[in-house]
Amino acid sequence: MHKQRQFSGVIAPVLTPFGEDGSPDAERFVAHCEWLMQEGCTALAPFGTTSEGNSLGVDERMELLEELADSDIEAGTLMPGTGSCSLADAIVLTRHAVELGCGGVLMLPPFYYKAPNEDGLFRFFAEVIEGVGDDRLKIYLYHIPPVAQVGFSLPLIGRLIKAFPETVVGLKDSSGDWNNTAAILDAHPGFEVFPGSEIFLLQGLRKGAAGCISATCNVSAAAIRNVYDHWQGAEADQLQAAITALRQAIQAYPMIPALKAIIAHYRQDLAWAQLRPPFVGLAPADAAKAIQTLADAHGFKLDFAKAA
Amino acid sequence: MHKQRQFSGVIAPVLTPFGEDGSPDAERFVAHCEWLMQEGCTALAPFGTTSEGNSLGVDERMELLEELADSDIEAGTLMPGTGSCSLADAIVLTRHAVELGCGGVLMLPPFYYKAPNEDGLFRFFAEVIEGVGDDRLKIYLYHIPPVAQVGFSLPLIGRLIKAFPETVVGLKDSSGDWNNTAAILDAHPGFEVFPGSEIFLLQGLRKGAAGCISATCNVSAAAIRNVYDHWQGAEADQLQAAITALRQAIQAYPMIPALKAIIAHYRQDLAWAQLRPPFVGLAPADAAKAIQTLADAHGFKLDFAKAA
Repeated sequence: MHKQRQFSGVIAPVLTPFGEDGSPDAERFVAHCEWLMQEGCTALAPFGTTSEGNSLGVDERMELLEELADSDIEAGTLMPGTGSCSLADAIVLTRHAVELGCGGVLMLPPFYYKAPNEDGLFRFFAEVIEGVGDDRLKIYLYHIPPVAQVGFSLPLIGRLIKAFPETVVGLKDSSGDWNNTAAILDAHPGFEVFPGSEIFLLQGLRKGAAGCISATCNVSAAAIRNVYDHWQGAEADQLQAAITALRQAIQAYPMIPALKAIIAHYRQDLAWAQLRPPFVGLAPADAAKAIQTLADAHGFKLDFAKAA
Repeated sequence: MHKQRQFSGVIAPVLTPFGEDGSPDAERFVAHCEWLMQEGCTALAPFGTTSEGNSLGVDERMELLEELADSDIEAGTLMPGTGSCSLADAIVLTRHAVELGCGGVLMLPPFYYKAPNEDGLFRFFAEVIEGVGDDRLKIYLYHIPPVAQVGFSLPLIGRLIKAFPETVVGLKDSSGDWNNTAAILDAHPGFEVFPGSEIFLLQGLRKGAAGCISATCNVSAAAIRNVYDHWQGAEADQLQAAITALRQAIQAYPMIPALKAIIAHYRQDLAWAQLRPPFVGLAPADAAKAIQTLADAHGFKLDFAKAA
């Protein structure tokens, strides 16, 4: 039996739009977040990998989060990324998120130094928890070894849960390795595990996962939510097959540029296609082809008629 | 013929001491920097990899640099690390360093996203240069693929030099690959190239390198400086062999914890041995053994009698 979950369902690592001057665009950002909640997201994870979160400055992250907390979106549904190579910045960002009432934070391990000592990783999280010093803090570990290179081993996860059972409450597994997700679920029933792709959503739910946190929720939250809502129904496998196929079609392109190109197209708002370095946008011809292919093969389109 | 070099010689990526509460200790930091200059360093590179620079917060880096700029050390001899995954933070840190009069900055590429598009890396530096908007800015590219994973290819180096000949003036090569260093020197005579280890110092100088920027300069600057001063003399190879052997002996231990343990021992100041997570210190027995081994096999010891 599970204790009440803090987070569950379909969570978007929210894309970050930029304005003409290259700064994050708070207005487009909040509008996108509100649209994602209308589309069926149960919660939002700004400042993740998909969000170009680590390309934002400490101040930029805090300012955008304040805008979001001031919007109609309930702060309890927010799980911002607050990880950093820097212990000091991780504490500042995490404390700020807790003080705004965010339901949780999604934390990368410090990722500059490779193959770090596991005691050192444990100590990093212990010092963040002590530094924030607030019982409301709920940490979701962000395991994404293909990008961060540094990840969370099963023993480290176990050690963190044991030491901080009320604080370290879940994990996003973006390893892309189902066996790893399954091993975490087996070892820690009740721990809120989110595969990092909806490809593993149904499989995950059947094994006790809490939902998924996936880049493509930025453009296909409604269909993913449909799987989440009907995972115990007769149609579940068929619904899952459709979102798996769509995800595979989208991830054939560079993910973040493609998602931004899709939003820009359907919002008829070219500014949305901008990325911050080191990313560059898709060439217009490639973007057009991607959008056409998704529409033709998957009936994919977005409707912003109801959006702000 | 070289144009006047901005930096040359023996440059220490300065260790960062921490106080009892885990914060950077400005007093110990400045004292260490002053001692390094007395020992023969020609310049200092705070906030590098050895400095646990990316484990420091944006504010911490700026505060320490201000302390250093207020000390007796000339700001023109400082080449602080100002790189960050975040374009915004990289601009803030770089502008701050220029405004304090630092002679240059040592910049990592944005290192969170792996295998970035080379146009995106170029654009990152272009936007930093434009964002800082100060002709005094001199950038040294920091190539350290074993840690950052993201590095500077030869074509990217060439493109940056061509676009910003007065700004992108040098590179630290911590690839550990002499062939790479040699290829950069061949391609760009006059570009200020610093191997990231004194093992390549003499070889580098003979091929036009400007000096070296090396972790072990924190404890053996005098001997390294001796090679730099006498590289055209009859004893050069013999002097080089001694510093190579010492470097190899030190790097048999985890480098940053070992360097801090050595300083703590000879300064009789245990606080110096502290590291910030994800690093952990050497076990006291391992530290003692390392210090003894270096003393026995290499006659290695430090003298802080003249230090502040």
